[in-house]
Amino acid sequence: MSKGLPKRSENYSEWYNELVKRADLAENSAVRGCMVIKPYGYSIWEKMQRALDDMFKETGHTNAYFPLFVPKSLFEAEEKNAEGFAKECAVVTHYRLKNNPEKPGTLMVDPDAKLEEELVVRPTSEAIIWSTYKNWIQSYRDLPILINQWANVVRWEMRTRMFLRTAEFLWQEGHTAHASSEEAIAETKQMLEVYATFAEEFMAVPVVKGFKSANERFAGAEETMCIEAMMQDGKALQAGTSHFLGQNFAKAFDVKFQSKEGKLDHVWGTSWGVSTRLMGALIMAHSDDNGLVLPPKLAPIHVVIVPIYKGEEDLATISETIKPIIKELKSYGITVKFDDSDAQRPGWKFAEYELKGVPVRMAIGMRDLQNGVIEVARRDTLSKETRPIEGIAAYVKDLLEEIQVNIYNKALNFRKENSFEVNTWDEFLEQIEKGGFLHCHWDGTSETEEKIKELTKATIRCIPLDAKEEEGTCILTGKPSGKRVIFARAY
Amino acid sequence: MSKGLPKRSENYSEWYNELVKRADLAENSAVRGCMVIKPYGYSIWEKMQRALDDMFKETGHTNAYFPLFVPKSLFEAEEKNAEGFAKECAVVTHYRLKNNPEKPGTLMVDPDAKLEEELVVRPTSEAIIWSTYKNWIQSYRDLPILINQWANVVRWEMRTRMFLRTAEFLWQEGHTAHASSEEAIAETKQMLEVYATFAEEFMAVPVVKGFKSANERFAGAEETMCIEAMMQDGKALQAGTSHFLGQNFAKAFDVKFQSKEGKLDHVWGTSWGVSTRLMGALIMAHSDDNGLVLPPKLAPIHVVIVPIYKGEEDLATISETIKPIIKELKSYGITVKFDDSDAQRPGWKFAEYELKGVPVRMAIGMRDLQNGVIEVARRDTLSKETRPIEGIAAYVKDLLEEIQVNIYNKALNFRKENSFEVNTWDEFLEQIEKGGFLHCHWDGTSETEEKIKELTKATIRCIPLDAKEEEGTCILTGKPSGKRVIFARAY
Repeated sequence: MSKGLPKRSENYSEWYNELVKRADLAENSAVRGCMVIKPYGYSIWEKMQRALDDMFKETGHTNAYFPLFVPKSLFEAEEKNAEGFAKECAVVTHYRLKNNPEKPGTLMVDPDAKLEEELVVRPTSEAIIWSTYKNWIQSYRDLPILINQWANVVRWEMRTRMFLRTAEFLWQEGHTAHASSEEAIAETKQMLEVYATFAEEFMAVPVVKGFKSANERFAGAEETMCIEAMMQDGKALQAGTSHFLGQNFAKAFDVKFQSKEGKLDHVWGTSWGVSTRLMGALIMAHSDDNGLVLPPKLAPIHVVIVPIYKGEEDLATISETIKPIIKELKSYGITVKFDDSDAQRPGWKFAEYELKGVPVRMAIGMRDLQNGVIEVARRDTLSKETRPIEGIAAYVKDLLEEIQVNIYNKALNFRKENSFEVNTWDEFLEQIEKGGFLHCHWDGTSETEEKIKELTKATIRCIPLDAKEEEGTCILTGKPSGKRVIFARAY
Repeated sequence: MSKGLPKRSENYSEWYNELVKRADLAENSAVRGCMVIKPYGYSIWEKMQRALDDMFKETGHTNAYFPLFVPKSLFEAEEKNAEGFAKECAVVTHYRLKNNPEKPGTLMVDPDAKLEEELVVRPTSEAIIWSTYKNWIQSYRDLPILINQWANVVRWEMRTRMFLRTAEFLWQEGHTAHASSEEAIAETKQMLEVYATFAEEFMAVPVVKGFKSANERFAGAEETMCIEAMMQDGKALQAGTSHFLGQNFAKAFDVKFQSKEGKLDHVWGTSWGVSTRLMGALIMAHSDDNGLVLPPKLAPIHVVIVPIYKGEEDLATISETIKPIIKELKSYGITVKFDDSDAQRPGWKFAEYELKGVPVRMAIGMRDLQNGVIEVARRDTLSKETRPIEGIAAYVKDLLEEIQVNIYNKALNFRKENSFEVNTWDEFLEQIEKGGFLHCHWDGTSETEEKIKELTKATIRCIPLDAKEEEGTCILTGKPSGKRVIFARAY
């Protein structure tokens, strides 16, 4: 590295952008608003995918694949959804380029190859999927349909940031169809639980589960549930959503089924998704001024071992000692890198693996070898200790588990310290500038929510599932309220 | 099923189309030329992906993700590639829809949201990837770059068939950059070997490895290597390609590196890919008039167990016996379905699992139970036998391995029986109508190849790697030739 990262305390936003680039996670591409996810970043995403996919399958879902394009007439069918996404969609209008006679060597759109009907690049797949489900569903025996899709989607965002908001992003989208409202609501809740479990157990990011207010609801949904995480600058990040669609899409696409009792009714639906945005949450929740901090469960490399040596002979001796340790570590499912390259000095390597967030670093030189010890450094606490070589693999195995827990607890404590019950508008104005989750009473109206957003840029992140019944008065209007909601500025 | 499949001998093409639909593999979508890959079909694709991905990683490759869109100016940069794909690409010209004032409730392209530069939906990613590699490569130390991408691509094909040729398809595309021609050629060959191993060991499809003639080469490549498989109608199917790109893309995108010796040179490249087309090959290579025949290594369900029972009590007794068998099968990594639903009769289930290609079916009734036996049916040979329940799980484990081998051998024998050394033009005309691989001498010119294609619809599938040196004369022109190439009609 030529120079250090910007400091979080000085410029959090620059720190994030630089970290994403320097840790080789992603970079901006030649296409406006689209990023290249680099191998190191992608390997973290692959680990996320694998863990989520296993959880989806355990809950009875299977994967399928639906077209990238949505014909305009289908796109239009569910009004609110169409309205929500029309303003920012990529539209395919032609199917051929031809040589530009005016500029030899260049191509132009062939006006003779105009599509009869424009195709929208999917911003989300409810329309194309529900138009397909129509043919799959006749009777209650065809239900439920429990399908997930891993795919790319495009939303023409004007202000983009890597992972957090990009024109194209990768995600999974679950789309289910049910015979009853109750069953669809249960599915909506179940998938929110899956997301919360994934965020907390794999990403080590504590989340608040709750309902979105009407303003923040998915276009076309009856209810949107979400998980909200707190970043280190005190801002919120929506990390996953699960929508109860009611019968909206079934009505828009005329999807009916015959019930056990022989009655014809519209089907009930849900959809739920998480995206590469989770990468942004992962980075911003844990990392520090030295670079990434990755929870072991999602780290592409768990342990790096750096030999400190002068000549080939020393290296051979060290390697001999290290070999069985690597073997034992691998037998525990731990990914190990033994970095014996002589292209860089140990100090450079230490900084590099810190930047990349490798959870455990071990270093060993000739004197260590003679003393039967090895240096073990933790990325999460930046602490070092000297340990006997004897039993080191088992020690590291336990240490990785401890690190996973510690990273989670640190984030949880941070959230606790930055969550406040706020009761007056003055307090609100003061606290919102400092950041954090503001638990406040709200009168339940969209007008008040919009007014608060206008005045402070804060939005209702969610109405928490565990909010207790409590009489109070709205932070802005003083009208009565029965429970607190969470206000925060958000990504 | 309401009625049986069309017979292969009567209408191979209809048989294929119906099989894809009835076995729940895929169906046509509302978008012209695009298909929906249904859960059962997708689960086979997932198994293919997993096996290939493991092999890519074992050979040192990592995954990454590049944008879906290619700006027109980048698309144009490598001339031959641009020419090859311009005729059939989807072009995004606008980034917004708006309400159509003339038709309330409908949307129209917003003329105020025209892109300054059109975006091509990637038909392949060399252009976007090489424009990225330019920034990643300065010195030989940055090489090789060994990256793979799993993605969707779009080629606006006019005549489409599910899996075999669709406007959008799923694939993987490897893109590597090297410091020398030799290294890039070695990579090209290595990846062809990976594909061949995958096709033969997982898909149970024997393939011929070879070089494409200039006519059939990938647009922008110096050499294209391929694997060719024979379908049951004697036609060829190209199942994977690996391209040596020379310095073509490096020159088009100005990608240079400083060599160890301090010399500045263009980088050498390769690209290689297989797609959901493999699903078509898998289906057409093995399946029969009763439905799919799947090699166990790619079958979503390995074993189905159907209890034959009259009442709940019988079912409970049978289940009790079956439980430990299922447990043991699962311990071998075998996927088992115990179909005890009472919605369908056993005969219906037998036909259904035959259609779906489940490799082994077991059936057991009360009398079998008393006799300590169980019926075991193989999908590949359609044979049945009665076996002792004792030791059945271990027997089935071995049986699955035997089935995998048998399916491969059957396909290999079929190919042998339908491969011919053809020496005269009259023989050629006669044999090409009957199908199969025609090993013939060819004078090496594109003119002759085109003429033969015009006259017979046969193309050179490949110049086999193992073709022996042998003097002969071209099948059409009588000019001298040093080895035989394979002509066939192809998908």
